[in-house]
Amino acid sequence: MVRASLLLLALATGASAAEPRARDLGIPFEGQPGPLNAITDVAGVTVGHATVVRDEADGRKVRTGVTAVLPRGQASAATPVFGGWFALNGNGEMTGTAWLEESGQLEGPVMLTNTHSVGVVRDAVIAERVRAGGADATGYWWSLPVVAETWDGHLNDINGFHVTPAHVAEALRGAKGGPVAEGNVGGGTGMVCHEFKCGIGTASRVRGNYTVGVLVQANYGLRDSLRIAGVPVGQFLRNDRVYTEPNPLAGDTGSIIIIVATDAPLLPHQLKRLARRASLGLARLGSYAGNGSGDIFVAFSTANAEALDGGELEQARFVGNDRMDPLFEATVQATEEAITNAMVAARDMQGHGGNYARAIDHAALVEVLRQHRRLAPGK
Amino acid sequence: MVRASLLLLALATGASAAEPRARDLGIPFEGQPGPLNAITDVAGVTVGHATVVRDEADGRKVRTGVTAVLPRGQASAATPVFGGWFALNGNGEMTGTAWLEESGQLEGPVMLTNTHSVGVVRDAVIAERVRAGGADATGYWWSLPVVAETWDGHLNDINGFHVTPAHVAEALRGAKGGPVAEGNVGGGTGMVCHEFKCGIGTASRVRGNYTVGVLVQANYGLRDSLRIAGVPVGQFLRNDRVYTEPNPLAGDTGSIIIIVATDAPLLPHQLKRLARRASLGLARLGSYAGNGSGDIFVAFSTANAEALDGGELEQARFVGNDRMDPLFEATVQATEEAITNAMVAARDMQGHGGNYARAIDHAALVEVLRQHRRLAPGK
Amino acid sequence: MVRASLLLLALATGASAAEPRARDLGIPFEGQPGPLNAITDVAGVTVGHATVVRDEADGRKVRTGVTAVLPRGQASAATPVFGGWFALNGNGEMTGTAWLEESGQLEGPVMLTNTHSVGVVRDAVIAERVRAGGADATGYWWSLPVVAETWDGHLNDINGFHVTPAHVAEALRGAKGGPVAEGNVGGGTGMVCHEFKCGIGTASRVRGNYTVGVLVQANYGLRDSLRIAGVPVGQFLRNDRVYTEPNPLAGDTGSIIIIVATDAPLLPHQLKRLARRASLGLARLGSYAGNGSGDIFVAFSTANAEALDGGELEQARFVGNDRMDPLFEATVQATEEAITNAMVAARDMQGHGGNYARAIDHAALVEVLRQHRRLAPGK
Amino acid sequence: MVRASLLLLALATGASAAEPRARDLGIPFEGQPGPLNAITDVAGVTVGHATVVRDEADGRKVRTGVTAVLPRGQASAATPVFGGWFALNGNGEMTGTAWLEESGQLEGPVMLTNTHSVGVVRDAVIAERVRAGGADATGYWWSLPVVAETWDGHLNDINGFHVTPAHVAEALRGAKGGPVAEGNVGGGTGMVCHEFKCGIGTASRVRGNYTVGVLVQANYGLRDSLRIAGVPVGQFLRNDRVYTEPNPLAGDTGSIIIIVATDAPLLPHQLKRLARRASLGLARLGSYAGNGSGDIFVAFSTANAEALDGGELEQARFVGNDRMDPLFEATVQATEEAITNAMVAARDMQGHGGNYARAIDHAALVEVLRQHRRLAPGK
Repeated sequence: MVRASLLLLALATGASAAEPRARDLGIPFEGQPGPLNAITDVAGVTVGHATVVRDEADGRKVRTGVTAVLPRGQASAATPVFGGWFALNGNGEMTGTAWLEESGQLEGPVMLTNTHSVGVVRDAVIAERVRAGGADATGYWWSLPVVAETWDGHLNDINGFHVTPAHVAEALRGAKGGPVAEGNVGGGTGMVCHEFKCGIGTASRVRGNYTVGVLVQANYGLRDSLRIAGVPVGQFLRNDRVYTEPNPLAGDTGSIIIIVATDAPLLPHQLKRLARRASLGLARLGSYAGNGSGDIFVAFSTANAEALDGGELEQARFVGNDRMDPLFEATVQATEEAITNAMVAARDMQGHGGNYARAIDHAALVEVLRQHRRLAPGK
Repeated sequence: MVRASLLLLALATGASAAEPRARDLGIPFEGQPGPLNAITDVAGVTVGHATVVRDEADGRKVRTGVTAVLPRGQASAATPVFGGWFALNGNGEMTGTAWLEESGQLEGPVMLTNTHSVGVVRDAVIAERVRAGGADATGYWWSLPVVAETWDGHLNDINGFHVTPAHVAEALRGAKGGPVAEGNVGGGTGMVCHEFKCGIGTASRVRGNYTVGVLVQANYGLRDSLRIAGVPVGQFLRNDRVYTEPNPLAGDTGSIIIIVATDAPLLPHQLKRLARRASLGLARLGSYAGNGSGDIFVAFSTANAEALDGGELEQARFVGNDRMDPLFEATVQATEEAITNAMVAARDMQGHGGNYARAIDHAALVEVLRQHRRLAPGK
Repeated sequence: MVRASLLLLALATGASAAEPRARDLGIPFEGQPGPLNAITDVAGVTVGHATVVRDEADGRKVRTGVTAVLPRGQASAATPVFGGWFALNGNGEMTGTAWLEESGQLEGPVMLTNTHSVGVVRDAVIAERVRAGGADATGYWWSLPVVAETWDGHLNDINGFHVTPAHVAEALRGAKGGPVAEGNVGGGTGMVCHEFKCGIGTASRVRGNYTVGVLVQANYGLRDSLRIAGVPVGQFLRNDRVYTEPNPLAGDTGSIIIIVATDAPLLPHQLKRLARRASLGLARLGSYAGNGSGDIFVAFSTANAEALDGGELEQARFVGNDRMDPLFEATVQATEEAITNAMVAARDMQGHGGNYARAIDHAALVEVLRQHRRLAPGK
Repeated sequence: MVRASLLLLALATGASAAEPRARDLGIPFEGQPGPLNAITDVAGVTVGHATVVRDEADGRKVRTGVTAVLPRGQASAATPVFGGWFALNGNGEMTGTAWLEESGQLEGPVMLTNTHSVGVVRDAVIAERVRAGGADATGYWWSLPVVAETWDGHLNDINGFHVTPAHVAEALRGAKGGPVAEGNVGGGTGMVCHEFKCGIGTASRVRGNYTVGVLVQANYGLRDSLRIAGVPVGQFLRNDRVYTEPNPLAGDTGSIIIIVATDAPLLPHQLKRLARRASLGLARLGSYAGNGSGDIFVAFSTANAEALDGGELEQARFVGNDRMDPLFEATVQATEEAITNAMVAARDMQGHGGNYARAIDHAALVEVLRQHRRLAPGK
């Protein structure tokens, strides 16, 4: 009934609230979100999606896409951000990490797509960069783009290589601030988590003067382990499981990419600390980071733009280490909510090879939480 | 009432159940523990404690100690184990990690003590080794002992340096299999977590042919963040907080050392993976790994003893990567229970400088869980 | 005169010695090479090159290519090898390293190409794998290929993206054992080191029962720092420098990828140790690993094929840590010689934008070494 | 004759040049040293030694000591420096690295001693800190001191544990700027490298506005591999070898600790880069970083003192990544010279168990270099 009533509310108000997010259902979360409860609450960050859904004449189902996160919007190519990364379980790809680790800088966008399209996306990011103004006196000589992936082969004809440079251009050029589409969009189009349809999710937290925003492409985990708001809901919601035996993929074969953005001025080694905290938010959903899961996280700070212009002697602001606890806590909280948002926003999808993934049933989820006295006050 | 009734039960049966453990209270945990629900369920592992509690004539309160975990019991000096480690937040010390990382081997015991006594413990481990048979044709030339710590300065006169080589000898020589004392013992004597008295805790899980055992020295976290069995009990149990403003330590200034033992044959790089999973168990208690917390984890496998005798060509068994999920899950589950056990087993303590830490109230905890329908069936 | 007399010797004997290698010139190296003095001395390793050299009608010069190193030849797709990697300076890309680090396994080939073609090569490796037998009951579901690069933009129209999937197929399918072409071939086609024309080089060492083979794609360093056989020859050979001021690239902007193969049975953590030693071989050439240099190294062992078939319980042989010194030394020595071979084998090249790179003058090099009494006996 | 003539020169001039350093012998080095050619050329850095040499009545020979390097002199306890570290081969101990890695800060001194005295030195550093003003409102609560070691058991009765807290106090309190004693002093007292008597060595380089200083405690390597100024002198100087078969230590069982100091403003991730370059300087001496060697390096920057006072929002200067090449080169060069200085400054020593280590013969060394035309001009 919850979904229906929210829908009526949305219709009545004309709001885009037609798509309830996790907290709209009454799921309790800690901390104070920003106005959009999205990574775009971090000023300057933009997000673009290219969603590729079509049925080929030969019966192949294409359910995939590309998501672009631009740390400084269209200025990202010219001005890096400080960044850091962490692999909780590295059964996945994130290109560009050797230079990110070495330089402490993230140059250009972070791209998300499917496992078998990382290459085309990577080179297309360079091609876009060249098109915008190639090797010249301004100092552009080479790029080492950051492209990450999760595996959508359950629903998508992943070995058909359907992502093209045009999709990359679409995601990059369409990137904007404001509300971020969640669920079956962009790189998240064909993703599944805890055996529910999943995809892109986002959330944010405000702590003092600073905002932490998180965006995930979530595609990990089995039903059994799912916890929401600390309640083991996976033990109660048993319908429509995806990976039942003797399916050879009946393990935790998915992945999750987590992007943490903040406007807090942090140095590279501090951003590695932030990236590591994403693990703790993921753990709250019940993940044990299965062997087949590529759980790779990247964090960046939009502060200190003026310090990254390539001059001789730079000056960077930073929050002292012993002032970082609120940012750690915000990262854990926003990660927890962003993943939940990805599940709540997703919609049922029929895909390749007759495979199917159902979205989590909002009303049933709410009922389990209610039974455990874990609905937010007033719900 | 729960504590009282369990006590009566214990008195009636003569069982050592006089000290209820977390699951005795009805706290629900996932997975199947071993017979002792302790790290000593991993065959060969022994644990010894030296507990140092005394009030000095000049008013200083000594509340500290040493815990020794011997991977192969008294054979640990002669035969290393494969091992790996991980720092979730490195505001702490674990000596010996450079060689552990390089060699993939853990040689000798893992020692736990307070922050300011790591040195005396380290050298005393070498001295014990020398005493047992020093530099000679058997190949003993140098040692790089593994010693870790958490900070007990809230209750203990830590700057009095009260740990001595004799305590190290006591812990090493007294190490044995069987049930493991928990709470205010050994290195855990003066520890505090989530502002409740804490200390040593242990638990285990059995998965197929393999056992995973965990032992923690827990001393981290604020009250607010405490979750048990997914329930935010820290929001309900508000009495006797320790670190309230304007206490300069009113942050997450503690630490937790987690030792993961298994008899599953794992290679060094696989044991690093296991160590990393301890993070996910810790996260279930609500930790966000605060800046002041030394959250350092070590994992070892007791298998492959014959492969580590220093011969020319060795042979090691190992579980394939894609069979590791049960071990990952067991690590997360046993870590969650071991920390809870440390809290449940601890007893109120008055310490240095008039500081006090109360144990968590069993009955009150059970009541919060009951309200959230999170007590194990039959409780 | 040296080059001429060797040529005459080659003509006279009909040997392929027409292309002298570094030790043919009398450059002294330590240690005993294998029969081919190449990475292919490690049984099973195969190497394939696709060399792409053409002048476009519009004046663009294509000077690039792809090199494939297959650890187990055509069996590489089915059976991984244990592997490890190290970034001395991570201003470069090597995809697939997150999984290599996590799993300790290298699955499939190691590919080398130019910086802006890593993506096309990566996805094409997957496509080749799909073509050879895609997602099916054999367990193939996804790939995370290892592709590394150096920047050939001085001589190659790198922003023209001239590498295609067909080149990848050519390198993979043409891979074979036996002698390895060096210099201006494959991924090394347009590379430059110490401001001399450079490219692919290889060498090997035999120690007891084991062979260590190294293959490099070398593209790093300034003239000033070049040392050969310990002699600072870069101070004496001053002609035809490439990166003179005010060239904005007049820093150490190149890169070097070093692949270390061995048949010694080593575990993943031991192969990381081997990869790290490549640094010490590179240092002998005078490198200080400049900020612009992507100095990334990967090591693998062809032993233990039967241990990597995905079964439940595996058995792996390994050399004890304290028997690894000969392998460390062999890695340093073979790296030193492989880089020198790359320089000696390269030939003058005219490239994009009118840029030019000259090969090192063999006779002049020999003369400098002779003056320093550093020619091998009999030369 | 060289030594004699230099001595005469020194006597004639009254200079302390009575102890020739490597470049006094005519060994050619690259780059421009600072006025002292020592780590103390970095303003603020002080060095103190406690040298412990005595023969016990029972025949045991004590040949050991402690060296303290204080990044900000006596202000080091109050104000940290940014720092980073790297283990080329981790068969050794450097305590405090978990926090150094996490925080990017080095707090207090770097201490050097023998392998079996790390513990006593560590706790004594804390005791000194407590003595100077313990846990109080100034924010001092706990310490995680940095103490590193090499193994002097060939000459020293290492299992006698002869280092005491008093030696630590002596080294700390005696630390000063100015010329640094080299060779058989402090932690280097009983050390041996390339089978020559060795110990402490130092050197520096000036590049533009910045100084890089290096101090080593050198105790690694076999004779065979020794290269000086690129000349394989270990092949020529064959006398008085230490580790000949069947000595069970006849491998590269030593270690080297390298401390890199700079006044260049560098961020923590950049200091890790600097620490890694020490490997390349060590490689020039011929090291292959043997399994038994603890080759562990730490780098710090004395800049940004005002940024490390624990305030809320800090401001740090830093050199852009693409301006770091001169600092990388300086680190390699100063490391090469510091190690050579340690060997040149050391003096013959008779030690424990009748073992002996001879210093390298200056005249013989010079003669080998002369034969290879590798003496500096004018020598």
